[in-house]
Amino acid sequence: MTDFEQKIAYLKSQVSDYLRTIVAKEHPVSLYEPIKYTIDGGGKRLRPILLILAAEALGASLQQSLPAAAAVELLHNFTLVHDDIMDQDDTRRGRPTVHSRWDTDVALLAGDGLVALAYQSLLATPGDRIVQIAKIFTAGLIDLCEGQALDREFETRNDVSLDDYLDMISKKTASLLSMCACIGGHIAGGDDSQIEALQVYGKSLGMAFQIQDDLLDIVSDQKTLGKDFGSDVRQKKKTFLWVHARNHAEPSQVEALTHYFNLPHIETEHIYKVRDIFMKAGTLNRARDFVHRYIDSAEQSLKPLEAGGVKTEDLKQLLHLIAKREA
Amino acid sequence: MTDFEQKIAYLKSQVSDYLRTIVAKEHPVSLYEPIKYTIDGGGKRLRPILLILAAEALGASLQQSLPAAAAVELLHNFTLVHDDIMDQDDTRRGRPTVHSRWDTDVALLAGDGLVALAYQSLLATPGDRIVQIAKIFTAGLIDLCEGQALDREFETRNDVSLDDYLDMISKKTASLLSMCACIGGHIAGGDDSQIEALQVYGKSLGMAFQIQDDLLDIVSDQKTLGKDFGSDVRQKKKTFLWVHARNHAEPSQVEALTHYFNLPHIETEHIYKVRDIFMKAGTLNRARDFVHRYIDSAEQSLKPLEAGGVKTEDLKQLLHLIAKREA
Repeated sequence: MTDFEQKIAYLKSQVSDYLRTIVAKEHPVSLYEPIKYTIDGGGKRLRPILLILAAEALGASLQQSLPAAAAVELLHNFTLVHDDIMDQDDTRRGRPTVHSRWDTDVALLAGDGLVALAYQSLLATPGDRIVQIAKIFTAGLIDLCEGQALDREFETRNDVSLDDYLDMISKKTASLLSMCACIGGHIAGGDDSQIEALQVYGKSLGMAFQIQDDLLDIVSDQKTLGKDFGSDVRQKKKTFLWVHARNHAEPSQVEALTHYFNLPHIETEHIYKVRDIFMKAGTLNRARDFVHRYIDSAEQSLKPLEAGGVKTEDLKQLLHLIAKREA
Repeated sequence: MTDFEQKIAYLKSQVSDYLRTIVAKEHPVSLYEPIKYTIDGGGKRLRPILLILAAEALGASLQQSLPAAAAVELLHNFTLVHDDIMDQDDTRRGRPTVHSRWDTDVALLAGDGLVALAYQSLLATPGDRIVQIAKIFTAGLIDLCEGQALDREFETRNDVSLDDYLDMISKKTASLLSMCACIGGHIAGGDDSQIEALQVYGKSLGMAFQIQDDLLDIVSDQKTLGKDFGSDVRQKKKTFLWVHARNHAEPSQVEALTHYFNLPHIETEHIYKVRDIFMKAGTLNRARDFVHRYIDSAEQSLKPLEAGGVKTEDLKQLLHLIAKREA
């Protein structure tokens, strides 16, 4: 484990400890038990860590960042719980999802509760920029809803372009990561140009992260992934892979792809065939290119900060951790 | 129409106009169409009107109150959309509910979007008490979630006491109304004792409103109500009526009541029989007593404000409007 990996592990445990204090309430059981279950499920805690590292780069302490860091993780978990209902995903982080362990109504309400707790934690942020931070947080939540709506609309459309796709993930994933970096900057009292740099950094990191995610859905195995293998294909999600292959594969491959996506139910054998098409059409390599391009762009966006004497080593290391992740 | 009723009608149209500007966005269609549909569905706009009247009593203008007024109405609509999913109610305000007009996933996401828009509007409130107001708003949202969880837990419990019931509606309904009065007071820059008085007023008004609602579910007809007649009974909700009858009706009536509530499906003929039991056990009159008692208590809570020279006429009139409502 490198020093940076140790630091990440430390921050992760700090965030998890802090989160546990937020979800400590016990009654009503049907609300707080699934909320606790979700938070205890772990996960990478990427969003709070990004927020903390951005704040730290500009001089804020961990204590100053923790309430907002917990807030972005709670918000992220809210999207997971509600998205899992819509996607009918049964497994998440190697465990049953909330709606499959309890039921849809419990998951619906637990998601709502997570939003409420997220705002509660966010509003405990010290300093004089809370209103600004709350506005950024809310704009992020609106983006999340819009991104999720687009993602669902794409499921029944066959004409999704790469631009459509990039716009969708920009809202559904990258916006929240951009928001994390941005809020971190505000907590540290950063100036406009610093906040701007962090915003671009977070956005590019988020784009890389999502395309990597699309890739892992089909190149990783279920055990590593902690969720169903090929679930994007099964749900006919218009991922980077689908959009690229549909525009770049040979006509016979596109035809085969369309055939699989038009089946009423996509079985595991079909997923392997779809993966073959993605491979032969150069789609998997193209996705890897895009990931690296966004990682580079995120790294570039840190230059103005460095010019001002800000130490960006950790923010860079975070990029490399994302680029090489396997789950 | 009395002068006060005209004023209410005017405020209602002002709130509706303002709400329309908030939900003016068109894309993604699957997000904003159901949100607009919900907001266009009308409703009493009781919560924003309460907020505006409380703010006005302490000297704030309509313009100062509108963003927060819209926020509480958006939050209320969020609860309706999500609650309708859980309750499987098909009709609301005389129209199909969002999940029955579209589907559950659309309603789920529309509800989430309404929360986001609620915060966006709230944070546009002018003045220097936004953080305080946002904290009160968030505490109200947490209460809403807890109240809804309790309400659902009660559905499968046969031992719900009157105290349990009052605690549940205090969170599910009265808390939001109390929050409205409280936020109105803060917008006007009210002092601690004024805010406290408004809080008690809103809470009592909310308790009266909910018990009245329980009553109307079974004494009003579907056309007036705009939703399914007897839907509380159908869903085995532990309303004031059920709780009171179960503790005060004769043993044979309690037995009959238990029989109906244990049926796998409650039909319309059963609802009429349940209503007969409620009537014979004196439950309907007892509910009316409770409504009046809470209305009186709300009126009493205004005394300290009046002693300080605050004009509370409109806040009193609002109470009487609620006491005599038929839908």
